[in-house]
Amino acid sequence: MTRYQHLANLLAERIEQGLYRSGERLPSVRTLSQEHGVSISTIQQAYRLLENLQLITPLPRSGYFVSPRKAQPPVPAMTRPVQRPVEVSQWDEVMTLLDTRGDKNVVPFGSGSPDLDQPGLKPLWREISRVAQHQPEAVMSYDMLTGRQELREQIARLMLDGGAVVSPDEIVVTSGCHGALAIALLSVCKAGDIVAVESPSYHGTMQMLRGFDIKAIEIPTDSQTGISIEALEMALEQWPIKGVILVPNCNNPLGFIMPDSRKRQILSLAQRHDIVIFEDDIYGELAAAYPRPSTIKSYDVDGRVLLCSSITKSVAPGMRVGWIAPGRYYDRVVHMKYAASSFGVPATQMAVASFIRDGHYHRHVRRMRQIYQQNMETYTCLVRQYFPCGICMTRPQGGFLLWLELPEDVDMVSVSKQLRLQNIQIAPGSLFSASGKYRNCLRINCALPPNERNRNALKQIGEAVQGAMEHFAIVRGT
Amino acid sequence: MTRYQHLANLLAERIEQGLYRSGERLPSVRTLSQEHGVSISTIQQAYRLLENLQLITPLPRSGYFVSPRKAQPPVPAMTRPVQRPVEVSQWDEVMTLLDTRGDKNVVPFGSGSPDLDQPGLKPLWREISRVAQHQPEAVMSYDMLTGRQELREQIARLMLDGGAVVSPDEIVVTSGCHGALAIALLSVCKAGDIVAVESPSYHGTMQMLRGFDIKAIEIPTDSQTGISIEALEMALEQWPIKGVILVPNCNNPLGFIMPDSRKRQILSLAQRHDIVIFEDDIYGELAAAYPRPSTIKSYDVDGRVLLCSSITKSVAPGMRVGWIAPGRYYDRVVHMKYAASSFGVPATQMAVASFIRDGHYHRHVRRMRQIYQQNMETYTCLVRQYFPCGICMTRPQGGFLLWLELPEDVDMVSVSKQLRLQNIQIAPGSLFSASGKYRNCLRINCALPPNERNRNALKQIGEAVQGAMEHFAIVRGT
Ligand SMILES: Cc1ncc(COP(=O)(O)O)c(C=O)c1O
Ligand SMILES: Cc1ncc(COP(=O)(O)O)c(C=O)c1O
Repeated sequence: MTRYQHLANLLAERIEQGLYRSGERLPSVRTLSQEHGVSISTIQQAYRLLENLQLITPLPRSGYFVSPRKAQPPVPAMTRPVQRPVEVSQWDEVMTLLDTRGDKNVVPFGSGSPDLDQPGLKPLWREISRVAQHQPEAVMSYDMLTGRQELREQIARLMLDGGAVVSPDEIVVTSGCHGALAIALLSVCKAGDIVAVESPSYHGTMQMLRGFDIKAIEIPTDSQTGISIEALEMALEQWPIKGVILVPNCNNPLGFIMPDSRKRQILSLAQRHDIVIFEDDIYGELAAAYPRPSTIKSYDVDGRVLLCSSITKSVAPGMRVGWIAPGRYYDRVVHMKYAASSFGVPATQMAVASFIRDGHYHRHVRRMRQIYQQNMETYTCLVRQYFPCGICMTRPQGGFLLWLELPEDVDMVSVSKQLRLQNIQIAPGSLFSASGKYRNCLRINCALPPNERNRNALKQIGEAVQGAMEHFAIVRGT
Repeated sequence: MTRYQHLANLLAERIEQGLYRSGERLPSVRTLSQEHGVSISTIQQAYRLLENLQLITPLPRSGYFVSPRKAQPPVPAMTRPVQRPVEVSQWDEVMTLLDTRGDKNVVPFGSGSPDLDQPGLKPLWREISRVAQHQPEAVMSYDMLTGRQELREQIARLMLDGGAVVSPDEIVVTSGCHGALAIALLSVCKAGDIVAVESPSYHGTMQMLRGFDIKAIEIPTDSQTGISIEALEMALEQWPIKGVILVPNCNNPLGFIMPDSRKRQILSLAQRHDIVIFEDDIYGELAAAYPRPSTIKSYDVDGRVLLCSSITKSVAPGMRVGWIAPGRYYDRVVHMKYAASSFGVPATQMAVASFIRDGHYHRHVRRMRQIYQQNMETYTCLVRQYFPCGICMTRPQGGFLLWLELPEDVDMVSVSKQLRLQNIQIAPGSLFSASGKYRNCLRINCALPPNERNRNALKQIGEAVQGAMEHFAIVRGT
């Protein structure tokens, strides 16, 4: 982020927080320049940016004023998915999403990748280089089946931050959080079983269910408090459900953090019905608030929570370093690790262990939390500006994903095809439903820095949505 | 290998080949020293080594003579496993084997790891170091789901050596050969299915079957020509078998290479019964003969062979770079890759691609083929010397594994527990059977250089076996 962007964010925050009220005059360029010790032109750039975001309005010869406050779009209401177990579909759409990976010409708003263009990552790739040079034998050899000891020790420390006391010997290192979830599911479920999921929920997990012939029952989910415990309870009474997959902290795609009381409630529900909780904490470290929110695992007394996570979102996906704390399923998980994925890559495990141990991890995560919060605010403003009225939008409590709900009739699957021709990739909402719901929704990756290219792309998305709405209005003759 | 070891191997070979006959006088130390341009003491060391191996005998003041030829132990006969589908057991024993990994005090004769203390591997870890420094972005990012293009191109080239013409787009990169087999099995089979396997066969694959609730039917297998096609045919007529897992080239554990005619026969059998062949080619590059043997895949016309392999044995396990050429199951395999294991580690894939492209791979493999052949000859001699009579032993056509069959009553599972206390790890034969057969067998890893420590360990194994046989004779009162 450049200096003027930083400043603009700061001012935008003050406006959001009501420190500068609607209609109020902002400090003069000169005053701000002195206050922040930056040049006049930097302040001018920052003001122009805020003007573009329609947060402030210039009045000739009087300076800048806070724009009349445009109402925040409402948050999406509780979802209402199909209330019976279904087979997961949507593979072709997921493939389309994955296929554009690595194409530099495409703006990947649909991806879930973190920002990797960060100096805080330098110690990580330096460390990979170092271990390859200095410990070639370990790098070349088969590793321990459960993962390297020094890494499991660091992971145990990270888990403490979420309140879970887990010893390194109770942890199994996996290939990313995806690998963790796959092993967890294969250890607990068999083909034909039913598993409950939040709705919407992450498409990777859905495709896993499909691959293993497990049926999904989608449970209504609130964009601010998470899965409906009442609806889950009803489903548990009606169907032989084996477990529930939850992303309770900084949910993908909705961004909520389940309140602690609800985390406890869902755990006791799981105990009453003797089901398993697959807890996916992959975004948990990126919560806006500090200290980070607790995991459901931290309340687990009888080992029924299988905590799965990775450094994919907090650090980098390419390491493929993830883990499970499988509670009472430890033995089955170790066997399934051997059966389904066998040994891990020592080099990246060694590098990640040092990265955490030497403090680089926490420094990087602290910084990224801030950046992502700022990005999400900026993108929220931009969406208000570029998108038509009548939409709902999440107010994420962490992570870097925004979820938009458009009027019922807008079909984001076909809009996404159109955008793809403009080299813009988005994730239509239907990817996040086993039954193909949420075609009128989309998820936006706010890890992309809000630079000119990305702002323009967002504008194009807004225009395409506008077009789809108009088209629809014409078709309906309204 | 030191100079004198090299020389000893050379002379041992000439003796094996009959160039020096039993009872014949060997060239004088001085003659050999001149011929090979090495010091007198080197020749003396080599001769002493051959004397230790009982290949030559010194006669005072007359020089060295070729020892009377001790008969080669016979090869094991066709195996006779249980002829019905069974659930795989033996997990605890496999765990014991895996648990000693990385313990430097243990001599790992039971492992399947290649020799990693080789200068030919230097370009590989150097390359890892280089890609981390020079392409950090690619190293940090999610990769393509099917693996990096440049790596798939190199893999396609390697497949050509085995006669299979496969385009890079028909290849899916996996986490080792184990990951390849797991994805292949999950793509084709479901819980409750039956798969035929060679007997004995690699314990990792067996545990996979167990993990996925697939039953194994063990087919009689000959230590020189491979699986009995007749017995397989009978089994196919009797049971609803989905496919057969084969390691046709440099089999683990038996070391055979299936003759090409039998490879063709088994393929047409598979066609007639419409089953799938899971071909595991992991040792195929390490065949003693050059050019390397053909894969069954090379004869495949209707895409029913899923060829699985990796660089684990030919290069290094720690890279976790493997692959599948799944033929007509490509789409299912790609989906299952996403479901079960998701993306791979870019860093090691990039390094391996360069390692192959720049010729280091072929150079290394050529050298290792020779070393392993020499090692296996040395160990064969040592076994004849250290082990009691009445054993059978394979004559591998490649790879680095020897398989020993002791008298029926010897229990290698308990011998292995005893040896473990002496810091020697062996793989008892029962690991290689779904039904716990072959307790009187063991597999020896000849990738361990035959240095003093390892020779001594082998001697101790021989003594332990001798002890078990004597114990048994006493118990039986013979
Ligand atoms: C909620 C959630 N779980 C799991 C994953 C997969 O993570 P990994 O790349 O570590 O396998 C993702 C990645 O997008 C995710 O968003
Ligand atoms: C026959 C066979 N297949 C597969 C494997 C697993 O290979 P990887 O380590 O590449 O997963 C082994 C390793 O011992 C093996 O011997």
